[in-house]
Amino acid sequence: MSEQTLAEIGEFGLITRIEELVARLAPGEQVLVGPGDDAAVLRVRNGHVVVSTDLMVEGRHFRRDWADAADVGHRAAAQNLSDLNAMGGRATWLTVGFAAPPALPAQWALDFTRGFAEECALVGAGLVGGDVSSSDQIVISVTVMGSCTVSPVLRSGAQPGEIVALAGRQGWAAGGLAVLGRGFRSPRKLVDAYRRPEPPYDAGRAAAEAGATAMIDVSDGLLADALHVARASGVAIDVRTEAFEVPEPLVAVGAATGADPMSFVLGGGDDHSLLATFPPDAALPEGWLEIGRVSQASADGPAVTVDGEPYDGPYGWTHF
Amino acid sequence: MSEQTLAEIGEFGLITRIEELVARLAPGEQVLVGPGDDAAVLRVRNGHVVVSTDLMVEGRHFRRDWADAADVGHRAAAQNLSDLNAMGGRATWLTVGFAAPPALPAQWALDFTRGFAEECALVGAGLVGGDVSSSDQIVISVTVMGSCTVSPVLRSGAQPGEIVALAGRQGWAAGGLAVLGRGFRSPRKLVDAYRRPEPPYDAGRAAAEAGATAMIDVSDGLLADALHVARASGVAIDVRTEAFEVPEPLVAVGAATGADPMSFVLGGGDDHSLLATFPPDAALPEGWLEIGRVSQASADGPAVTVDGEPYDGPYGWTHF
Repeated sequence: MSEQTLAEIGEFGLITRIEELVARLAPGEQVLVGPGDDAAVLRVRNGHVVVSTDLMVEGRHFRRDWADAADVGHRAAAQNLSDLNAMGGRATWLTVGFAAPPALPAQWALDFTRGFAEECALVGAGLVGGDVSSSDQIVISVTVMGSCTVSPVLRSGAQPGEIVALAGRQGWAAGGLAVLGRGFRSPRKLVDAYRRPEPPYDAGRAAAEAGATAMIDVSDGLLADALHVARASGVAIDVRTEAFEVPEPLVAVGAATGADPMSFVLGGGDDHSLLATFPPDAALPEGWLEIGRVSQASADGPAVTVDGEPYDGPYGWTHF
Repeated sequence: MSEQTLAEIGEFGLITRIEELVARLAPGEQVLVGPGDDAAVLRVRNGHVVVSTDLMVEGRHFRRDWADAADVGHRAAAQNLSDLNAMGGRATWLTVGFAAPPALPAQWALDFTRGFAEECALVGAGLVGGDVSSSDQIVISVTVMGSCTVSPVLRSGAQPGEIVALAGRQGWAAGGLAVLGRGFRSPRKLVDAYRRPEPPYDAGRAAAEAGATAMIDVSDGLLADALHVARASGVAIDVRTEAFEVPEPLVAVGAATGADPMSFVLGGGDDHSLLATFPPDAALPEGWLEIGRVSQASADGPAVTVDGEPYDGPYGWTHF
């Protein structure tokens, strides 16, 4: 098995193996009809479904020499589960479109699936369907579905005077990516953070229940995503660097590469932390750290500043 | 605009244009939160959601010199809407993961979106979210969601003695593909059938309401998909060629290429017709044609035969 390519195992052979793995690792709840028919059928309890789709492209979002297949699976699941986290919801089901070269070892696809299903199992979500195809390059498209127990928290609800807060690690994965990009494999903690992010899966719902007014998954970069919130809400956001304790491994990477370690914190996105705004008198839930304030947008429109000034480093990343 | 590439218009520029198009062409019903946040929020009325994901890869499922961008959009939507049709349901929402080379004209992506949204509008479905990324090759991953008003019709319910029936055109798109593959552009009706399939969108629900016991979207090939039903149900299926009136353009293509025109009917999958089984005394709904019978599987296991004999032509296609 481990020696076979996708071309050798075949489309239906691969699907059968994936279905076996998934049934064992992450069957999911409330699945009325699982993988194997024209569509899956899922029981919806709260009268609504929350849905998001994300792409991962080899060479663009991951490299096979920088992370093993299970890592890529964990990360593909994490970035999607995190989108529902950012709505204040919980993911219950996912589908995967998996396009890959025929010469890819079938074991890579199965290890990917294992990592993916293990990450889903952390929140009790199940892989309920998908498609496979040949392509020149690995392209993975994940759709996640779930629901909220309180009203979904959008990007557009931030008000002047409110607190800006962060949950989860920030800058670790970007530091790991910088290390890998220079051909190194340490500090190991940063590299591991890039390979398998640890999104704060409980923080989104806790924030929603605590009255968060706006929330976003930090995937483009802390400042870039703060700017998404500022624009959607029509406000200004100021982030204070004194709020962050830059972790020791990032200080080491900064010293070794000549980069300001704070730039990883402010521009990094791959940790899938959450950024949210709360009313000024809100008690922040456990795991949330105040990092700034919302104010009225100036005549120039919504903006994000750092310590009260425009920031001249990168806010994050774009995908073309 | 029409001269710009995806790299020039940028990720967020493209997303903004897509959202404008979609809001105009196919806004969708019961969309509580549409595109633009971390996730979409959709109102579910029937206590369940039916979900399917399909991939389309350039060079594998479409060629840009064989179909224009709007055609590819129509086809991408049609093949997914058809999966819900095959459950006896109706599609209400779709998401799209769109990976493409940075040098692709932005107009291609927008024309794709227009065709996609127009096809969705045929059944009242809306595009509610998605993602874009750069890649070496166009890869489109569509997830469709919807619901059923009666119990979903699976592949596994066929019983010996039942009628096998077909709804929709069969063989037209395969004929068109054969024509295009030889460098021709006519018969135009076949080429058009390949570029923009016309799935029988009302036939799935009608079949479910008439008591269909098993149903499948014919996408791999009529015999290949009949074999999926036979295996899932543990039965044998015999298809009778006398049931089909081979359309004149297919006869012409057969004569020109030396192929048996019936091979397009039996092996073709791109029309997205539906195959279903019905109890022997069922009155077939309008648009359904009896094409064969279900019988007990022999000792060799589930199988599909043609006019009582094993078939030596292709049953359909596989994707690696």
